[in-house]
Amino acid sequence: MAKDLTTRSENYAEWYNQLVTKANLAENSPVRGCMVIKPYGYAIWEKIQQVLDGRFKDTGHVNAYFPLFIPKSFLSKEAAHIDGFAKECAVITHYRLKNDPNGKGVIVDEDAKLEEELIIRPTSETIIWSTYKNWIQSYRDLPLLINQWANVVRWEMRTRLFLRTTEFLWQEGHTAHATAEEAVAEAEQMLDIYAEFAENWLAIPVIKGIKTASERFAGAENTYCIEALMQDGKALQAGTSHFLGQNFAKAFDVKFTTKQGNQELVWATSWGVSTRLMGALIMTHSDDLGLVLPPKIAPFQVVIVPIYKGDEQLAVIAEYANELKSDLKKRGFTVKFNDRDTYKPGFKFAEHEFQGVPVRIAIGPRDLENKTVEIARRDTLEKKTVSTEGLTQYIDDLLNDIQSNLFQRALEFQKKNTHAVNNWDEFLDVIENKTGFAYAHWDGTAETEEKIKELTKATIRCIPLNNKQESGTCVLSGKQSTQRVLFAKAY
Amino acid sequence: MAKDLTTRSENYAEWYNQLVTKANLAENSPVRGCMVIKPYGYAIWEKIQQVLDGRFKDTGHVNAYFPLFIPKSFLSKEAAHIDGFAKECAVITHYRLKNDPNGKGVIVDEDAKLEEELIIRPTSETIIWSTYKNWIQSYRDLPLLINQWANVVRWEMRTRLFLRTTEFLWQEGHTAHATAEEAVAEAEQMLDIYAEFAENWLAIPVIKGIKTASERFAGAENTYCIEALMQDGKALQAGTSHFLGQNFAKAFDVKFTTKQGNQELVWATSWGVSTRLMGALIMTHSDDLGLVLPPKIAPFQVVIVPIYKGDEQLAVIAEYANELKSDLKKRGFTVKFNDRDTYKPGFKFAEHEFQGVPVRIAIGPRDLENKTVEIARRDTLEKKTVSTEGLTQYIDDLLNDIQSNLFQRALEFQKKNTHAVNNWDEFLDVIENKTGFAYAHWDGTAETEEKIKELTKATIRCIPLNNKQESGTCVLSGKQSTQRVLFAKAY
Repeated sequence: MAKDLTTRSENYAEWYNQLVTKANLAENSPVRGCMVIKPYGYAIWEKIQQVLDGRFKDTGHVNAYFPLFIPKSFLSKEAAHIDGFAKECAVITHYRLKNDPNGKGVIVDEDAKLEEELIIRPTSETIIWSTYKNWIQSYRDLPLLINQWANVVRWEMRTRLFLRTTEFLWQEGHTAHATAEEAVAEAEQMLDIYAEFAENWLAIPVIKGIKTASERFAGAENTYCIEALMQDGKALQAGTSHFLGQNFAKAFDVKFTTKQGNQELVWATSWGVSTRLMGALIMTHSDDLGLVLPPKIAPFQVVIVPIYKGDEQLAVIAEYANELKSDLKKRGFTVKFNDRDTYKPGFKFAEHEFQGVPVRIAIGPRDLENKTVEIARRDTLEKKTVSTEGLTQYIDDLLNDIQSNLFQRALEFQKKNTHAVNNWDEFLDVIENKTGFAYAHWDGTAETEEKIKELTKATIRCIPLNNKQESGTCVLSGKQSTQRVLFAKAY
Repeated sequence: MAKDLTTRSENYAEWYNQLVTKANLAENSPVRGCMVIKPYGYAIWEKIQQVLDGRFKDTGHVNAYFPLFIPKSFLSKEAAHIDGFAKECAVITHYRLKNDPNGKGVIVDEDAKLEEELIIRPTSETIIWSTYKNWIQSYRDLPLLINQWANVVRWEMRTRLFLRTTEFLWQEGHTAHATAEEAVAEAEQMLDIYAEFAENWLAIPVIKGIKTASERFAGAENTYCIEALMQDGKALQAGTSHFLGQNFAKAFDVKFTTKQGNQELVWATSWGVSTRLMGALIMTHSDDLGLVLPPKIAPFQVVIVPIYKGDEQLAVIAEYANELKSDLKKRGFTVKFNDRDTYKPGFKFAEHEFQGVPVRIAIGPRDLENKTVEIARRDTLEKKTVSTEGLTQYIDDLLNDIQSNLFQRALEFQKKNTHAVNNWDEFLDVIENKTGFAYAHWDGTAETEEKIKELTKATIRCIPLNNKQESGTCVLSGKQSTQRVLFAKAY
């Protein structure tokens, strides 16, 4: 096994942790719960940022930047919001260090205590809505469509690289609207953008849905989400978009003058995806040989490895490889010609396989005589000898094929692991043995939802959008139900 | 005066503050010393990021991300470093809030006190070098060329938008090398990139130089800098690049095995520019009518304003305007067609002038009959009627002309305000009356440097690179000197 990677069947959690660190995506830092995102991992995150940022701008949003710090009193202004975040807040109390008079290095200077403690933003609704108060006077100032790329901090007790870290990177959109309808449409539009991005770029099939009241964002009227299914059968929430109603406008007294001259409270949305998407990406596609990356999001789509003896052979191969590289570049692909002489081809093969490079091209001197190259695709591990004639087009097509194959494979997995269940035994069988989504009737009460969570650790991931309405009976309580919802154990 | 902007001659500091807020670049936040970067300001910062990021990658650097938090003990490991930063550190002491038992909102939960306090990074040398220790074993791992885009916090007592804020955005490069020569070459290369960017993109002429020992970065062996001159005759440090020697390698015990099998300490550099560049950009070019932006960095290069009565006239103008917009887009320019009907042309003219849009095109129905448009350039405020024939090329040339005109104008200002002085009276005359750079002999001692600062508030901005060597006498002490250095009051 490459790099002694634990297999998924041996220990899925361990396989994930090893893969993230050994593939140089991220590692734990000396600061509890915080990660270092390594260059290879960050290159993927940059691609995610670039594509999403383009989507946001295409739909009329602009970027801005709000402070890292939130005064404690601001966080308290919206009751549900503070309830949701109070227990995981990093608190700044002082602004200076000084030399320890006992000569033991530096200590906190007690004379530099803040009058009011500052919280590191766990999310920015409060600081942003306190600012919007000054930006919004009239209907002419609406809609206000702003996004921010930022780091946030939530003090998590159990952390895992990318999936749950004390500090993480994300984007948070915060919009203000004149009507509830417009705000709802915005929240739904952003959910669609997330879903389209997850499926077409990350090749992760997702289910769009609505959270139940108990799973809603703290301060939201309605939380939309996209839910993905990982290879171990656990669900992962990959993005959320919230209709916030007038809750934050009330908390910060943000009103606008309508065309008719009335004063009304503003309607709000917020929406975000984070470095958690990296976890979803890794767990959806990768295998026991290492990372598998969809071409559209891979830092390198193609790697070329020369097989040669001596500088003369290398020179001939390099000439052809650079020509091919330049042809592929013109089509927008990123190609690496790995001619480092400190490593043997076999080592390079294993390395690129482990890093999930979608297409590997090996070129030896005999290949060039025969006008062929050897091509290996990472998703199926197939190898093939291919003519150099029309090679650029061949690779272009191959990359498209890999992209759609990865999506199809994940979609089939998701479908195979989504089980409609009709009673408690079937429900338990899915949650405890089969794993995956249990699509089950639920009586709509928070009590039953909580009870199911206690009994099985499964939560309602979402009520799918455009869900089929059908009468039935709740798998736990036996009460009347009008629709099935998606349950699963989740990250 | 547009938007009642205070003029530069009335009160330069006030002019700057008003301009930044009224042009929607940034504003003070409710959090002391922290700013909100508004969408128009952030759009400029995004352009700065995009260009610099490209330059960094072209020279072999990759991006990564390191934690926001630094354990207090890490910061203390390099003696000069902690001395430099201890007094401005935001300190996290707790990680949870709880409900006040007296019912007065939320309070800090004393049970959630950290064993070791965490500092919000004021710069990341310590957390990064503690990480590099695990990444560097052999000469094969070198050089390590990493950059990070991040927010940092330095608790400043007196803050000013963009120029000095408690939290600011920046990039910080941190590289590791096998030899001192290679590290010095890296530090110099990055200085060159900063200078080239400042001059060719921001149109800010800069002087490349070296800081004196007392102005060095805390922990550096040598600090390179670029210094710019603002319109009020004060200097502004626009970027720094540090040769860190082996100081951080020593502090974190980072050694590598050489080709010959020896163990040696690694050599380091770090380099950064921040949102401070926005302040330099604003103060270099803007005037009493508002912002003036170099075309290459302006969010919009061209704005088209229709002059019309009724929808029919607007439709005809819009058809032409959209065609022109699309032609200009093909050349890579960003064009805004401002057809909002809620505002009159005069209001729009003032607005775009205030926002520093380089070129404004006004189109009325008579213009189209005559096959002309009216073009106004923001730098010189000239207006001209121009034929629609060859208009795209005309605008392309005009934008280039504005870009170079702004640079030339700023360069002339810098030259005119750089005064070689030969005695203390001349020195005082420059610092107190003429303003600008005083290019004066200095005896090379920290005592004289400190004395001059006490007497005049002027500091040594830098010893210019490739400085002319000539014998002379120090303007203050009268002692022997081998070269002149640049003094100025500074931001």
